[in-house]
Amino acid sequence: MKKDVVNIGLVGCGTVGLGVAKLLQTNLPVLESKAGAKMRLLWTCDKYGKPVPPRGVQKPRFTRDWRDVVNDPHVDIVVELIGGYEPARTLVLAALKSRKHVATANKALLAKYWGEMSVAAQQSGALLYFEAAVGGGIPVIQGINEGLAANRIEKIYGILNGTTNYILGRMTEDGMDFAAALKGAQEAGFAEADPTFDIEGIDAAHKLAVLASLASGAWIRLEDVTREGISSLDVWDVHFARERLGMVTKLLGIVELGKDRFSARVHPTLIPGTHPFANVPREYNAIFVHGDAAGDVMFYGKGAGQMAASSAVVSDVIYLARQVANGTAGQIPYVTYNPAVQLKPIPFDQLQCRHYLRFTTVDRPGVLAQITRFLARQKVSISSVHQEDTESALGAAVRGGVPIVVLTHKAPEGRVREAARNIDRLAVVRRKTVHLRIEDSF
Amino acid sequence: MKKDVVNIGLVGCGTVGLGVAKLLQTNLPVLESKAGAKMRLLWTCDKYGKPVPPRGVQKPRFTRDWRDVVNDPHVDIVVELIGGYEPARTLVLAALKSRKHVATANKALLAKYWGEMSVAAQQSGALLYFEAAVGGGIPVIQGINEGLAANRIEKIYGILNGTTNYILGRMTEDGMDFAAALKGAQEAGFAEADPTFDIEGIDAAHKLAVLASLASGAWIRLEDVTREGISSLDVWDVHFARERLGMVTKLLGIVELGKDRFSARVHPTLIPGTHPFANVPREYNAIFVHGDAAGDVMFYGKGAGQMAASSAVVSDVIYLARQVANGTAGQIPYVTYNPAVQLKPIPFDQLQCRHYLRFTTVDRPGVLAQITRFLARQKVSISSVHQEDTESALGAAVRGGVPIVVLTHKAPEGRVREAARNIDRLAVVRRKTVHLRIEDSF
Repeated sequence: MKKDVVNIGLVGCGTVGLGVAKLLQTNLPVLESKAGAKMRLLWTCDKYGKPVPPRGVQKPRFTRDWRDVVNDPHVDIVVELIGGYEPARTLVLAALKSRKHVATANKALLAKYWGEMSVAAQQSGALLYFEAAVGGGIPVIQGINEGLAANRIEKIYGILNGTTNYILGRMTEDGMDFAAALKGAQEAGFAEADPTFDIEGIDAAHKLAVLASLASGAWIRLEDVTREGISSLDVWDVHFARERLGMVTKLLGIVELGKDRFSARVHPTLIPGTHPFANVPREYNAIFVHGDAAGDVMFYGKGAGQMAASSAVVSDVIYLARQVANGTAGQIPYVTYNPAVQLKPIPFDQLQCRHYLRFTTVDRPGVLAQITRFLARQKVSISSVHQEDTESALGAAVRGGVPIVVLTHKAPEGRVREAARNIDRLAVVRRKTVHLRIEDSF
Repeated sequence: MKKDVVNIGLVGCGTVGLGVAKLLQTNLPVLESKAGAKMRLLWTCDKYGKPVPPRGVQKPRFTRDWRDVVNDPHVDIVVELIGGYEPARTLVLAALKSRKHVATANKALLAKYWGEMSVAAQQSGALLYFEAAVGGGIPVIQGINEGLAANRIEKIYGILNGTTNYILGRMTEDGMDFAAALKGAQEAGFAEADPTFDIEGIDAAHKLAVLASLASGAWIRLEDVTREGISSLDVWDVHFARERLGMVTKLLGIVELGKDRFSARVHPTLIPGTHPFANVPREYNAIFVHGDAAGDVMFYGKGAGQMAASSAVVSDVIYLARQVANGTAGQIPYVTYNPAVQLKPIPFDQLQCRHYLRFTTVDRPGVLAQITRFLARQKVSISSVHQEDTESALGAAVRGGVPIVVLTHKAPEGRVREAARNIDRLAVVRRKTVHLRIEDSF
């Protein structure tokens, strides 16, 4: 059934919700020509009360109860921007069940309920779009799902969280320690009052799970994403990596997809200063996708912010509207998901990469021999050793010991950890080993 | 009308054509699940004779005459990979007229006949896809057209040609002069025997015209793209910019889109060493798109190569197949083009940017005063002056004179050219002024 007018219900009128309403006003003629139909914002909904209505010709109805929107038979597309698990989950499932198409920015919901959401969409013949869930205004979801459709996606890695990227930028460029950089980020509006979600890598893990599920056709579960945040990162290592190794510290989400197995992890990562990620500033995100045919493709842009996220939501709305107008929406699911396809997670201990290890030791002959013996026992091969003179600014900055930095060749995580555990018990070692991962095989 | 099997005719079995055939074999199950239909390669066509048939289950028919493919009523999608203007134009128009959908990689054709092609597609109700025409495997066409659909696109700039990027890389990193770097590129397979199309910026201009037309909804004509290649670029300036200014030389295509006016140009451009483009290597392409809502978005990936281009072509084929299977293909045109919308080109002389000027002068007091007087007369404001000591390696490398480099603030092209013309007539000036443009307002 074709439609001349497509009706939209907007649930959640926070920053992004208002941005969406604004775009639907200011760019409407362009949007409608792309959708091939009139687009009408029929409802706005927010449990906290009516927002300042966007100026313009459209005067949407307002409600505090999302059920009014989902139950209205005139509504074709529900935009879910309330975030979190509930009532978002109930709302999206109810909307899909009543064959309303959904555009959402909710990565937490998608990461946790990927299977349920995908199956609900398939069964109802309604579409679930989520461009804004990862990478803000960057069209990476569509890029992976459609633009790279001809490819088997083998690897994705990215700077997926703007808050941590901002904090790491301040630590790298301004030499701030983590606490000071976090405070700066909060003052600049780049970090929440409770920053746990961002700094512990939870937000990045959500996004990685979404990307991995999308790219694999299987459901990559959140609990299979190994995760380490940046809150215990010492600015000394960030500084040393840059000054002595020419490397930059970024919080990366990395997923590798094999035929039956996968690995997914979020952790602080050292990358070469010449990598395109090295200069990704502030709240920007960047995502590399490796396809078997296209090779490396990178997407880059604002990962947060009102209008960037709104751009992604409204682009979804346009493409949903186009299909609604056409009478074809939902005939083919947006995402290929087959519950029968199961990929096994590779245990983190078995993952191979290069490692950065910083030991803090007493200044005495034979220390290096003791340390390297334990690495050798675990068959961890050393690629370089950097012992900083205690008279140098970098050397003096480590209190209570001499810093020795060892870079390894590729080695399994488990062996390196075992070596570090043994080394930490040595009498000549003063502090717990700092262990970071290196990605320079791009 | 729905279809269970979608039939494809492939015209042009060169490198990319064979890559397309290969992908349609190796990744077929994945492709078919995404298309929601069986996909069958019905024809291959090449005027030079039958190519080595791709291994696998599909045994396409072969012909030397493209008319066999276009006239076959069973064919749903024609893949045009012969390149050039004719017979490509006749073929594509004939295919569209008989309501066959077309996927093409032919940027020359699109740039020259954008209006005719778009109107033909609109009138026939057939779709014309062209992801592979710009940026090889990078899904930038879809990104602009769909992922950023909510935006007014205000600016696009990019490294659009891999050959020149390779040559400039060798000049920058290995200090080769243009002729040696070109020879290296030819030996490495990155440049054609006749490299004119690439090194004179013609290929980049084609791609820029396609991007600009796509983003604006108007037709940006090739003759309105100002163009300067890299063949007269002196490695001295490339080297100086890097060593003394921290800037990297790239051949950029730049388009700015206003409400009624636009500018489009391709020329060697100095960009800051910290810009994400600075490290774009070898045959890679990178494209920045500035949307009013999304802000800056960058796409990056392999701009050339068999499988990268094939990835783009086959992704198009999947989305065409999806719509053919669905019975909805062509109900809305892929590209918004309205012949009534006309944008006027801003004359190149009026364009504002920062400039790099290198004068080669005699070593005598008062030279700088003479030069700067002519700049002042044209109201061109200087941001910095660099006079290289003739004893230094850089200074000594310029024969027959002393190099004086002047960077300007933003100034109109025409005024700078007029100043340079006058300066070149001075008795103290030994060689024609080198004039490059700077883009650092990113």
